[in-house]
Amino acid sequence: MRLLLINPNTTESITDLVAARARALAGPDVEVRAVSGRFGARYIASRAAAAIAGHAALDALAAHHDGCDAVLLACFGDPGLMALKEVSPVPVVGMAEASCHLACLFGRQFSIVTGGERWDPMLHEFVAGLGLSSRLAGIRTVAPTGAEIAADPERAMALLAEGCRVCAEEDGAEAVILGGAGLAGLADRIGPDVPVPVICSLEAGLRATVAAAGLQRSKAMSGSLARSSPVASTGLSDELARMLDPSF
Amino acid sequence: MRLLLINPNTTESITDLVAARARALAGPDVEVRAVSGRFGARYIASRAAAAIAGHAALDALAAHHDGCDAVLLACFGDPGLMALKEVSPVPVVGMAEASCHLACLFGRQFSIVTGGERWDPMLHEFVAGLGLSSRLAGIRTVAPTGAEIAADPERAMALLAEGCRVCAEEDGAEAVILGGAGLAGLADRIGPDVPVPVICSLEAGLRATVAAAGLQRSKAMSGSLARSSPVASTGLSDELARMLDPSF
Amino acid sequence: MRLLLINPNTTESITDLVAARARALAGPDVEVRAVSGRFGARYIASRAAAAIAGHAALDALAAHHDGCDAVLLACFGDPGLMALKEVSPVPVVGMAEASCHLACLFGRQFSIVTGGERWDPMLHEFVAGLGLSSRLAGIRTVAPTGAEIAADPERAMALLAEGCRVCAEEDGAEAVILGGAGLAGLADRIGPDVPVPVICSLEAGLRATVAAAGLQRSKAMSGSLARSSPVASTGLSDELARMLDPSF
Amino acid sequence: MRLLLINPNTTESITDLVAARARALAGPDVEVRAVSGRFGARYIASRAAAAIAGHAALDALAAHHDGCDAVLLACFGDPGLMALKEVSPVPVVGMAEASCHLACLFGRQFSIVTGGERWDPMLHEFVAGLGLSSRLAGIRTVAPTGAEIAADPERAMALLAEGCRVCAEEDGAEAVILGGAGLAGLADRIGPDVPVPVICSLEAGLRATVAAAGLQRSKAMSGSLARSSPVASTGLSDELARMLDPSF
Amino acid sequence: MRLLLINPNTTESITDLVAARARALAGPDVEVRAVSGRFGARYIASRAAAAIAGHAALDALAAHHDGCDAVLLACFGDPGLMALKEVSPVPVVGMAEASCHLACLFGRQFSIVTGGERWDPMLHEFVAGLGLSSRLAGIRTVAPTGAEIAADPERAMALLAEGCRVCAEEDGAEAVILGGAGLAGLADRIGPDVPVPVICSLEAGLRATVAAAGLQRSKAMSGSLARSSPVASTGLSDELARMLDPSF
Amino acid sequence: MRLLLINPNTTESITDLVAARARALAGPDVEVRAVSGRFGARYIASRAAAAIAGHAALDALAAHHDGCDAVLLACFGDPGLMALKEVSPVPVVGMAEASCHLACLFGRQFSIVTGGERWDPMLHEFVAGLGLSSRLAGIRTVAPTGAEIAADPERAMALLAEGCRVCAEEDGAEAVILGGAGLAGLADRIGPDVPVPVICSLEAGLRATVAAAGLQRSKAMSGSLARSSPVASTGLSDELARMLDPSF
Repeated sequence: MRLLLINPNTTESITDLVAARARALAGPDVEVRAVSGRFGARYIASRAAAAIAGHAALDALAAHHDGCDAVLLACFGDPGLMALKEVSPVPVVGMAEASCHLACLFGRQFSIVTGGERWDPMLHEFVAGLGLSSRLAGIRTVAPTGAEIAADPERAMALLAEGCRVCAEEDGAEAVILGGAGLAGLADRIGPDVPVPVICSLEAGLRATVAAAGLQRSKAMSGSLARSSPVASTGLSDELARMLDPSF
Repeated sequence: MRLLLINPNTTESITDLVAARARALAGPDVEVRAVSGRFGARYIASRAAAAIAGHAALDALAAHHDGCDAVLLACFGDPGLMALKEVSPVPVVGMAEASCHLACLFGRQFSIVTGGERWDPMLHEFVAGLGLSSRLAGIRTVAPTGAEIAADPERAMALLAEGCRVCAEEDGAEAVILGGAGLAGLADRIGPDVPVPVICSLEAGLRATVAAAGLQRSKAMSGSLARSSPVASTGLSDELARMLDPSF
Repeated sequence: MRLLLINPNTTESITDLVAARARALAGPDVEVRAVSGRFGARYIASRAAAAIAGHAALDALAAHHDGCDAVLLACFGDPGLMALKEVSPVPVVGMAEASCHLACLFGRQFSIVTGGERWDPMLHEFVAGLGLSSRLAGIRTVAPTGAEIAADPERAMALLAEGCRVCAEEDGAEAVILGGAGLAGLADRIGPDVPVPVICSLEAGLRATVAAAGLQRSKAMSGSLARSSPVASTGLSDELARMLDPSF
Repeated sequence: MRLLLINPNTTESITDLVAARARALAGPDVEVRAVSGRFGARYIASRAAAAIAGHAALDALAAHHDGCDAVLLACFGDPGLMALKEVSPVPVVGMAEASCHLACLFGRQFSIVTGGERWDPMLHEFVAGLGLSSRLAGIRTVAPTGAEIAADPERAMALLAEGCRVCAEEDGAEAVILGGAGLAGLADRIGPDVPVPVICSLEAGLRATVAAAGLQRSKAMSGSLARSSPVASTGLSDELARMLDPSF
Repeated sequence: MRLLLINPNTTESITDLVAARARALAGPDVEVRAVSGRFGARYIASRAAAAIAGHAALDALAAHHDGCDAVLLACFGDPGLMALKEVSPVPVVGMAEASCHLACLFGRQFSIVTGGERWDPMLHEFVAGLGLSSRLAGIRTVAPTGAEIAADPERAMALLAEGCRVCAEEDGAEAVILGGAGLAGLADRIGPDVPVPVICSLEAGLRATVAAAGLQRSKAMSGSLARSSPVASTGLSDELARMLDPSF
Repeated sequence: MRLLLINPNTTESITDLVAARARALAGPDVEVRAVSGRFGARYIASRAAAAIAGHAALDALAAHHDGCDAVLLACFGDPGLMALKEVSPVPVVGMAEASCHLACLFGRQFSIVTGGERWDPMLHEFVAGLGLSSRLAGIRTVAPTGAEIAADPERAMALLAEGCRVCAEEDGAEAVILGGAGLAGLADRIGPDVPVPVICSLEAGLRATVAAAGLQRSKAMSGSLARSSPVASTGLSDELARMLDPSF
């Protein structure tokens, strides 16, 4: 099985890091092809950066999906998710949607711990779009950055565990998502210090992508996620132009 | 990995059938221990039968969970689900909850095709409890019974595919769940005749149970799914009495 | 008029207490037949105990409804309520549903004061199931136990009144339900110390049960609360087996 | 016990009819004082007539509540309901709110059958205001008028029963409210021809008003239904002016 | 263009003040005819006063709409709004509805700052009726009165700005409505001290009324806002009686 | 006053047409600067085209907002709307959001008539994001194309009027939005043939943009629509890169 992992921001070093973690989690039977956005913000922490990233993710899909069985959109917040599902011939799963749906199996109420304070309203809107607002205990944008984790890993882990505990104790969360590729792998380390299950968003995304890849016939031929009519375009990459209009 | 599959009705032949299909789907690395309810209705198609089945599922869990890594509650409608999650030391996943959350990855709107007309209101209430009513296109209780499938498999398949097509074409479903252990394995056969992805509830349940078993620390120590205080009881099986009160 | 009062836990002394209070409230024209669950937890304060109690309430209904005009399910939280409504030939009313609907006549927002912290999430889900979440100001699980009331009645009353006042002053409740058979009769005593109406759940349940008994034709012949098709069973009491399948 | 029954329209003959039915239903222990609006439309079947009726109901309350234990607002749609609850020293119950809450005890989904097509949107908004939209199967404004009932009672009953059956069979209603004082007493006659319970709105309103009158301390001293600060006015009846400002 | 501005309370000096501000805002191309309620409370700060004001606003509309192109109901809370829309031959806009819809263009979440603590629950219900509860960050009834503004304008402005800042900083409001004709003109003065846009309810109402007047064909001939059937009445002003029944 | 009108698709002739209509509607006091997307689909009728258009609209804003008082995003469906609001120093209004909020002043329930069947689910999601789902009667994607209008204007008008009538008569709409710049100017022509108000989305958008431009202080300094922290980027136009990071 071959998965395409799209990091829609434009920082290659993050893509490499996420790809390495994904390969470790996925095991030897799954090949992970990892790509970054070709344009856009270095990291995504605003509505504008996310809107551009939706286009960049489509562009990356068009350029690299060939030969892949499924696609993981590996930016917590899933920019461009529904558009990718529409044009892709293979299943596309977002890291955030997969995490939220998995969290629902573990708790009546789940919380999200992530970094970047602008993600708070953006993720509230995202969860509302999923229909899961009634399951969301809260969002806390307290996660340490990669730099902070590198500088003092133990302190970063302690702060992260504390953030998760507050979700359980003050917000009533019965499961906590560590949202963001940058936090991949940390759930297991802080889990023992948090009184409710802690979910790694990369792991949740990977598992759901593998599950989707296994479904025999997964491309809708009708409805809002089926391919739309071909449309001419201008100023796009050749690959994306061809995805919108195969006769290009 | 060892999974406990609970069929909370009291018909052993159904349990055997579901277990065989589950083992085929799960592959050699997963051991499936399958048990039936020790009391209750022969099949579950009413509010009363489902209420009794909640108790029977708890009883089965108490008697058989030892040594298992996770539990699949294999009756579409998930009787007793939250109670099992509360008392079980290992993750419990319901076939219906897993299917609904998986279907959300494939469609903005999903439908359920199942058998037994009383399940229509009961599943509407179940999906509302998950918070997913806004994602539900509809429920159609048109699935053929096991007897009908056995008598004329091709006709049964044709009727089932027709039911799924109606979900897509009239109700706007972008994914369809075949709900019920008795329909396990049929999604692949009718998929080519349905314009949107068709999800097998047993497969969805199994995948989610395996994913849940893989989470390192999955038992909540706080919140409404943590173990409650011990309570004495009377008239229950010894195993269940001990699960409610370990000092029993 | 004869009412069946079902206490679905297995503590006879509580049943006796509730029955006495119910008889005092109902007056001489109403005969109250009171029964306990034949199996299950001594008291109900967890999801598991409530799931078992749903079966026990069905069993009690089957064994004792004969000759009764209506049934009051006298455990605040109403375990098994919809299943009882389905199988019973006479109206079944839950103490919690009756209280919530009555409270809506007295306040735009109502609160519930009860005992047992696990009832907080369980009652939030129950009220959501009624469709009344938008009317719920909050739930406070601060009620004194029967033992505490017996040991120092004045202090218990003071604490209870204080809990109700907090509902009004901090949560904005315009009516407060004292939820639980164990608190029956206390609303009148603390009412003068609370700035909004205080509703006794047993009284609310009794009044609604009497009202339901007075409705001339009250058993649905269609819909999800009509009798379902007969179904064979195993391991149940003879009475309950016969209720599921009259030909038993 | 003495109840004030307010018919907020200005047709005395309807008030007399409703009062007679109410007295028959309430029995000898309840004295019913019945009054009409002093100004406004002859019957209420528009938003404007209902808005005026809210004022007229307040005026009637001010003029006649003295010595009464509770008030029944006897126009299905309850014009001015919350304002009456605010200013009245004794409980006020609306015929429509009481019917909707009672219907919820009998069915997961209830329908309303009433007369006057403008009531359809107005009652949808009313039920939404109660928070009960998720419980409403539908509204059908097919009820015969008093004149039609008088002219050919059997045909009118047959049409009314047919309307109720459609609610059950097409809309999925599990209980049906006959909404409107003009339909009081007909539920028992058509009940045998309808497959689900049929609720008389006058009876539902009366029972709830009696229940409310029985609550020992029922006037809120805080919240949005407590008395507001006195306010001077002009152009109102002396009684209403004094109710708004006791120093008047 | 000629607008009718209805102040439904009975204090002429407020009407004069609001009219002056409205004329200054509307510019020379718009003629503003301003009228007060002929009966009712001196100011509106309770459910009862608002219910009476609904009738008074209808009465004022009937007496003064002739020759006007649109109507602004200039009491924040919009008493009688839907009834006015129903009977009026020209568009009617409420100051509160216009403000809420305009605020949605400036913020995902908006707050309301107004005076009179009873307006808090009343406006929550009003916003829910608009369907905009999910957009409402909160309501704060902290606005200074006209008397306080007159006595110490600088202090009043400082308090008002502080109230708005709290909406942004604590409640997460992204826009704040200054609700109430009495606060007209203050948004510009405090705007520089508030970190999010501040909306003047009178200006919002005026702009929307002008926009509505410009729509070529604006009276519904079907639906719940079309004219209803004529109905006779008693005890109303001749103008209103004729509006309900043109043959009067 | 100078407005920037962004047509985010890449067809200049449509931009010219819309600009001409906008100038006619806006009058001589408003200067309209109109621009097209520099890249993307020729027209927008799919999720992918809309996602790309969000980026193109941001790019157009960055390149052309200088000296403008407000921005109208003139594609019904408002691609990239919240991102534009975030980065723009002046107010940004979407044609669809403005239309929906205006429609709410005219009807309890509004419908949308537009072209392109994929817009049906996309607009349902858009309206849900506004919080206005409870106000939406339906969406009908029956509008004639520009080519069809040109070929046989009378027939196109008749079909459009018929579509609007169906919204009122079958769906219960009390106002109908003609959604799409291509339908600008037609509302007045078909209005006389439709029983409820018909709203031109371009006119609604223009009026709201002018109103927003008139608000004295309209850029949020806090909340999710304030400018975010500067972020470096790659592969974007210089103007957009500088908008994301002014130090670029």
